[in-house]
Amino acid sequence: MGRCIWILSVLSLWLCMSETTAPYTPDWDSIDSRPLPKWYDEAKIGIFVHWGVFSVPGFGSEWFWWYWQGDKNPNYVSYMLKNYPPGFTYADFAPELRAIFFDPNEWADLFEASGAKYVVLTTKHHEGFTNWGSPFSWNWNSVDTGPHRDITGELADAIRKKSLHYGVYNSLYEWFNPMYLSDKKNGFKTQEFPQNKLLPELYNLVVRYKPDLIWSDGDWEAPDTYWNSTEFLAWLYNESPVKDVVVTNDRWGAGCACKHGGYFNCADKFTPGSVPNHKWEKCTSVDTHSWGYRRNMRIDELMSLPDIIKDLVYTVALGGNYLLNVGPTPDGTIPAVFQERLLGLGGWLKVNGEAIYATKPWRVQSENDTLPVRYTSTDSSVYAIILTKPELKLKLSVPKITEKTVVTMLGVSAKLQWVALDPTGVIVDLPEIPDSPGKGWTLKLEGAL
Amino acid sequence: MGRCIWILSVLSLWLCMSETTAPYTPDWDSIDSRPLPKWYDEAKIGIFVHWGVFSVPGFGSEWFWWYWQGDKNPNYVSYMLKNYPPGFTYADFAPELRAIFFDPNEWADLFEASGAKYVVLTTKHHEGFTNWGSPFSWNWNSVDTGPHRDITGELADAIRKKSLHYGVYNSLYEWFNPMYLSDKKNGFKTQEFPQNKLLPELYNLVVRYKPDLIWSDGDWEAPDTYWNSTEFLAWLYNESPVKDVVVTNDRWGAGCACKHGGYFNCADKFTPGSVPNHKWEKCTSVDTHSWGYRRNMRIDELMSLPDIIKDLVYTVALGGNYLLNVGPTPDGTIPAVFQERLLGLGGWLKVNGEAIYATKPWRVQSENDTLPVRYTSTDSSVYAIILTKPELKLKLSVPKITEKTVVTMLGVSAKLQWVALDPTGVIVDLPEIPDSPGKGWTLKLEGAL
Amino acid sequence: MGRCIWILSVLSLWLCMSETTAPYTPDWDSIDSRPLPKWYDEAKIGIFVHWGVFSVPGFGSEWFWWYWQGDKNPNYVSYMLKNYPPGFTYADFAPELRAIFFDPNEWADLFEASGAKYVVLTTKHHEGFTNWGSPFSWNWNSVDTGPHRDITGELADAIRKKSLHYGVYNSLYEWFNPMYLSDKKNGFKTQEFPQNKLLPELYNLVVRYKPDLIWSDGDWEAPDTYWNSTEFLAWLYNESPVKDVVVTNDRWGAGCACKHGGYFNCADKFTPGSVPNHKWEKCTSVDTHSWGYRRNMRIDELMSLPDIIKDLVYTVALGGNYLLNVGPTPDGTIPAVFQERLLGLGGWLKVNGEAIYATKPWRVQSENDTLPVRYTSTDSSVYAIILTKPELKLKLSVPKITEKTVVTMLGVSAKLQWVALDPTGVIVDLPEIPDSPGKGWTLKLEGAL
Amino acid sequence: MGRCIWILSVLSLWLCMSETTAPYTPDWDSIDSRPLPKWYDEAKIGIFVHWGVFSVPGFGSEWFWWYWQGDKNPNYVSYMLKNYPPGFTYADFAPELRAIFFDPNEWADLFEASGAKYVVLTTKHHEGFTNWGSPFSWNWNSVDTGPHRDITGELADAIRKKSLHYGVYNSLYEWFNPMYLSDKKNGFKTQEFPQNKLLPELYNLVVRYKPDLIWSDGDWEAPDTYWNSTEFLAWLYNESPVKDVVVTNDRWGAGCACKHGGYFNCADKFTPGSVPNHKWEKCTSVDTHSWGYRRNMRIDELMSLPDIIKDLVYTVALGGNYLLNVGPTPDGTIPAVFQERLLGLGGWLKVNGEAIYATKPWRVQSENDTLPVRYTSTDSSVYAIILTKPELKLKLSVPKITEKTVVTMLGVSAKLQWVALDPTGVIVDLPEIPDSPGKGWTLKLEGAL
Repeated sequence: MGRCIWILSVLSLWLCMSETTAPYTPDWDSIDSRPLPKWYDEAKIGIFVHWGVFSVPGFGSEWFWWYWQGDKNPNYVSYMLKNYPPGFTYADFAPELRAIFFDPNEWADLFEASGAKYVVLTTKHHEGFTNWGSPFSWNWNSVDTGPHRDITGELADAIRKKSLHYGVYNSLYEWFNPMYLSDKKNGFKTQEFPQNKLLPELYNLVVRYKPDLIWSDGDWEAPDTYWNSTEFLAWLYNESPVKDVVVTNDRWGAGCACKHGGYFNCADKFTPGSVPNHKWEKCTSVDTHSWGYRRNMRIDELMSLPDIIKDLVYTVALGGNYLLNVGPTPDGTIPAVFQERLLGLGGWLKVNGEAIYATKPWRVQSENDTLPVRYTSTDSSVYAIILTKPELKLKLSVPKITEKTVVTMLGVSAKLQWVALDPTGVIVDLPEIPDSPGKGWTLKLEGAL
Repeated sequence: MGRCIWILSVLSLWLCMSETTAPYTPDWDSIDSRPLPKWYDEAKIGIFVHWGVFSVPGFGSEWFWWYWQGDKNPNYVSYMLKNYPPGFTYADFAPELRAIFFDPNEWADLFEASGAKYVVLTTKHHEGFTNWGSPFSWNWNSVDTGPHRDITGELADAIRKKSLHYGVYNSLYEWFNPMYLSDKKNGFKTQEFPQNKLLPELYNLVVRYKPDLIWSDGDWEAPDTYWNSTEFLAWLYNESPVKDVVVTNDRWGAGCACKHGGYFNCADKFTPGSVPNHKWEKCTSVDTHSWGYRRNMRIDELMSLPDIIKDLVYTVALGGNYLLNVGPTPDGTIPAVFQERLLGLGGWLKVNGEAIYATKPWRVQSENDTLPVRYTSTDSSVYAIILTKPELKLKLSVPKITEKTVVTMLGVSAKLQWVALDPTGVIVDLPEIPDSPGKGWTLKLEGAL
Repeated sequence: MGRCIWILSVLSLWLCMSETTAPYTPDWDSIDSRPLPKWYDEAKIGIFVHWGVFSVPGFGSEWFWWYWQGDKNPNYVSYMLKNYPPGFTYADFAPELRAIFFDPNEWADLFEASGAKYVVLTTKHHEGFTNWGSPFSWNWNSVDTGPHRDITGELADAIRKKSLHYGVYNSLYEWFNPMYLSDKKNGFKTQEFPQNKLLPELYNLVVRYKPDLIWSDGDWEAPDTYWNSTEFLAWLYNESPVKDVVVTNDRWGAGCACKHGGYFNCADKFTPGSVPNHKWEKCTSVDTHSWGYRRNMRIDELMSLPDIIKDLVYTVALGGNYLLNVGPTPDGTIPAVFQERLLGLGGWLKVNGEAIYATKPWRVQSENDTLPVRYTSTDSSVYAIILTKPELKLKLSVPKITEKTVVTMLGVSAKLQWVALDPTGVIVDLPEIPDSPGKGWTLKLEGAL
Repeated sequence: MGRCIWILSVLSLWLCMSETTAPYTPDWDSIDSRPLPKWYDEAKIGIFVHWGVFSVPGFGSEWFWWYWQGDKNPNYVSYMLKNYPPGFTYADFAPELRAIFFDPNEWADLFEASGAKYVVLTTKHHEGFTNWGSPFSWNWNSVDTGPHRDITGELADAIRKKSLHYGVYNSLYEWFNPMYLSDKKNGFKTQEFPQNKLLPELYNLVVRYKPDLIWSDGDWEAPDTYWNSTEFLAWLYNESPVKDVVVTNDRWGAGCACKHGGYFNCADKFTPGSVPNHKWEKCTSVDTHSWGYRRNMRIDELMSLPDIIKDLVYTVALGGNYLLNVGPTPDGTIPAVFQERLLGLGGWLKVNGEAIYATKPWRVQSENDTLPVRYTSTDSSVYAIILTKPELKLKLSVPKITEKTVVTMLGVSAKLQWVALDPTGVIVDLPEIPDSPGKGWTLKLEGAL
């Protein structure tokens, strides 16, 4: 039996460090050495959900508060002047996050139908409002005001009933938290904020909801030592109830992104130029202007289904996961146009998912000789995903075909005729091109090299 | 100079009946004899906009008030019990119709891009709330509360800048207007409501906004003699500022639908079995559950683009106009999914509009031998609109081809090869089938019989 | 049986003019000849209640709307700019008139305890909002929004249970009613407003609530012929259900005040210099700055109890009735300070009421030789009401005392000693001066001349 | 130089313990040994102000939240059911604490005019909402929501401009603070709440606003060791910026009341039977039902001016201070009836203050032989305060009169005639009894024993 400490009475939580078995020490070398739990790489596709008080103004982006009162961006300032009484504060929006129609099972149905394998909710964004009844965020959380519901917990239950993985987004910093601002003013030499707010809350979140993924954010203004990140991660990997399954990203302090932690996000919407030597994830949003709901979004500002499919395929070909974001309304509905995108994605994956889930990057990731193609692979097959509608004679330049190679198009039953080229390449005969609203067609080459 | 009467001081309106020139008398024989202004039949496609206080609850349908307090439908009753304080009334919703983002020019851009040629706004629905500052609906209109704007006028200006035609929907009855209820209780032997509210307001609407179309509704509980419909229409056709251009429909009293007035709507979403001998219009809604905005609409409750194209083509083939409805949000935006539908429609019409606008029904309206086809025509051409993706050899059974016949597919430049069948019919060679997200392809047969 | 006309279907009201018995014709000579029902002169004291949408802003005065948007008074304009979103309208206040605590029986208890004999409620002020479910003021009345209650009717029932008389205040004009504004623009040569709104509503009010008193107001911009006042009054006196008991005032058209109608108010807070030859009433308000509730009223802006007693006594000495106003809160409570004033008044009247109720002016109304005194009288007694605390030897100069004269002080049981002066006057010996929070003491002189 | 510790970075506060000069140690013996700063005993009269989120419902009492959701008192539960939507929380009231009319200088004028010498504001009541921008109560304070103003600071400035002393009420416990509830569940063996919320906030309050008085409350559920009370008080008395002037009361932990701390409140509204041997204060409220504003308070539930004067005089005679409470409205006004009471008190003190301020209890505190009398004294005079209106011959039984004794009545210039009784007592000749709305008259006996 190891040494135990009573870390947080409010959590009724004993932290027991069993000295012999704890493999990770609170330093990056040790933390970074942990292998990534296997489910994550195989999942490939997640749904990101940005929901919070920012969904109420639903204007500009989920950074509304910052642009309004931090940056004093004239668009936001004049929006408030025009539509609200003088003196109105951001906190005054919270009661309007009413979540009248929030039905977590409906969300879960939709997310499952999208083909995603995990879901990440903003349990606390930079605004500091927690989507569960955090004891460290009294009267600034989804139970005490607004929805009057445990959003984080209700969604967890619904997601797990579908056997999807559940992740929690957590912002380290909080733009306007006075404790944070005080630490910041002190050059982060004091740690009032992490000690009294951030860390107790984060432990609470993990112990209470047992997330499979922690999507950390808002780290960039202070070093990881300020956030106590390595201590938290050591606990998470050694002792927490999710120590074996949990996955995290790389936003754990200034300079950590693309370098330390779990998988790498690097920057928002970042895509590398070649296959990185570390697991990564691309996060992006159907609404190209915002992660949170915008009441006045226009269709031409949204990703079309082909945009999404292309982005997904590019990402997976390079070994990444794809985390696609939607922003629910203050009422708790997913706007119909987002439903359409997710169902479109699910439809495409029903046909082409074999070329995505649990695949590995191939020796070559793309070619563009005759038309844009991306490759993925499994042990036995190579998948060429074609991203514009092909001609009936389709030429691929890279694969090397052998006599035994079998070529099919996913979604079409017949084996296709082909002619091998020398030294590499193949011309495939397509009898017809099936409709693909997502504009992506997959050739499966069994036994190609 | 004819006889003049001062009908409504509040309108500062003299009605001058120039006795020699007034062609229409206030009876159905005379009213029905008026020829339909030509623009309407040529327009073919309109956009219907349901916007009012019902958009605020945005629950169930635009009949919210009626289902809640007229029918006492348990879904509506429990929605109110669950989400509002006891005693909350429908009138209390009005201040929330804030129209913060209402930009009539953006709407007009969208409607124009949809390919529609006219737009019909619910200037007053059965709730009685007027979308302009009606002097007869004081404090129950869009200027005195809610938007604080002249919705009807602002949209009129924007629509006309685009050279589209502008129509006004007007409900004759008002579910809960106490004057109406009193008349109803009196078996419609009294006319307090039409004299004091309906008619003054309707004259006001016409004189003020000069609509090209009056879409009458809510007529069915009382005979046209109660509504004074023929008097109003005689004035409209003889004396009003829009007497030459205005078009109306057929909802002017119990028993009038499909029988009297202007063009016929018959019932909502009605489609006849064969070409009627009177101009008609099909009105329908992208949201199959509601004409007004619903906050919790699901994508599977909405018409897809192919549904819309098919419905439009069926309608036009039978000589009808197609009035497609969208419901804006209380903020005054058109939900992105509706934008997508309208732009999809516009995209289809850009290619296929030649087969729609200003066409006439052909001698045969449809065939379904090999696949579903609808026909339209102009003096020189027959248009076969194919509503499922055809094979490369496409057979039509009905047209009779002559040597001079030229066959093309709209959107494809080349002339197509064909083989005539005997006695009628043709097999057309299609080198490729262009993508059509709306799933409608048009063969143009010049010189076919 | 006389001639009947169906005047207003919405009222289900037949006006039957029984030709033989109708004593009044619609002209001022006839109207003015009607004797005042006796109850009114005997009552002497009434409570005026100003309650409406203006109680919600509760700022400045019940003329809030006018000062804000009619006059554009900078105080009101800046109040709105500072505290409400741009575009907020007066109608938007209505849902906040919630009347949560309105208990008409509590009001009636208080009014009875004040010693008042009648109560007058603003059933419709210049804002046009009706405190009952007027069918002519749809969605702009206390049933359709705000209180969601029949204020006028509920108060009527409670007042009558106390055997007090019930009066209704009704404003003829409505500042911003578009029909009124149109008539006004037409130099009142048109009568849209009285025909369609004012008169139907007023008939409705009378027939429905059977008031004992109609306190007309808002008449001054147009002649009585515009308002159809004499026709209404002839109906009221000849045919209405309250024809025998009802009392009205003198605000029935420009130039009518102090001249025609029932009793005279002349101007607000008007007091004549000597006894008029026509019954009159002084209306005034505990809050000297407003008739409606002001949220920020200060104690030094209110009448003290002695102010009220003095004002009442001056009024009654001159033959007037005294109508004292209080403004309830939007919650429907009477502010405690007003309760205190009314109970103070009641306490004073419990002792001194004999010198007030059912009295007549005396031959002399006042003297001020040694201290301020006002006189009232009955057939057998003269009452000298002293309005500053007297010395123990009190001299009155006017009364002529006879041997049989008995002098007492109301509230003190003993007969007082006196010495008559010549030719008139008396010195009265007061053994003690009882406390009088209202600072009014009454000497009763039985048998004085 | 002593030892320094950086206790709270958010306060930018170094606690420097100068070891040689710190006279108080954190134990009750030491704390209790501190002499009470002189100003407090001399002041005698303070105004207590209860203002917070509880002022918004303004129903029942300032314990609204507790009665509603702690006790589940049916009155409160049904009030909420009847008037609010299901799910409405206490936090949702906060935005309605708008303080539109809050003018601290007007308050200060009033408090000064009341004759009070200090003012105590509820800077944080049991609800935990802070009336200043506490960094430890983010989004649950008067700056982040509701008033959007620093109530504590603005009032401090205004009060000090009047040279009144400024006190802060602070509740130790917070009914529903999850950290407090957790500690409570742990039998107060953990101290999450005092460490993370209560104490940092309290230090912040003291350092920022430098109060002359800390009115502690809400201590009773836990021992002072849980609250760290003696440590706080030692800091307060040794090191704080107000160490020389500050006064506190006795609510610092279960069992402390009437025993430890500064002056004693014992229980709310407590009055001892005889002069205690420790300075004490009686706190009471004009509204006998509540300390916070009640929207539906009735005049018969309020203390009258004579009630207040009597209570004050009883208290001062027994050596106590008198802290009289008023509850402002959510708009930030002091209801007119409270203004009237405070001005009445001020008027009485203008005449009789000499018998109150800076007095000491006399050898006898009361007599009631002929009428109720209370005594106070200074070095040179004895004051007999008579609490019912006296006869002209007034007998006092207790004072011993000497030849040199001069008897006057405060507010009357003339010396009074008297006859001494044997062995003690005196009969005083009163030529007249001046009006006293507060019903308290003071005889000043110079040179009596």
